Amino acid sequence: MRLTVLIRPKAGILDPQGDAVQGSLAHLGFVVSAARVGRLVDLEIPAMDEVAARREVERMCAELLANALIESYEIVTGPT
Amino acid sequence: MRLTVLIRPKAGILDPQGDAVQGSLAHLGFVVSAARVGRLVDLEIPAMDEVAARREVERMCAELLANALIESYEIVTGPT
Repeated sequence: MRLTVLIRPKAGILDPQGDAVQGSLAHLGFVVSAARVGRLVDLEIPAMDEVAARREVERMCAELLANALIESYEIVTGPT
Repeated sequence: MRLTVLIRPKAGILDPQGDAVQGSLAHLGFVVSAARVGRLVDLEIPAMDEVAARREVERMCAELLANALIESYEIVTGPT
């Protein structure tokens, strides 16, 4: 089963990458009032029901994938 | 209007970050058959209709956000 974890800097946390993207887009002539950059992780895990799979991925987020102090995450299933 | 761009390494492109994540998860005892790491960019752009907004973000992807040679991207609207 495939799940995707979307990891974003929390509101209020500095995001220099996002600032750079916003600046570069402005430089290219695009009008963007905010840009934030995060990560995504696509995971393929052995078949289990969705509830169990989400619980497993929650644990992966807590133990490795996200830094809860400065990042929020969201787990989405299916092709995103 | 808020749009999110999901950027992933194309199939067949080496993804050392994904390999590292998969290795670390295995080390922690998780069973993961594949892990791929990509980026996401949340963009806040001035109100326009969704079709125009997507077209604008397509251009941002082509000009700055994604490297079409090695990355694929997907534009999603609304809170993801």
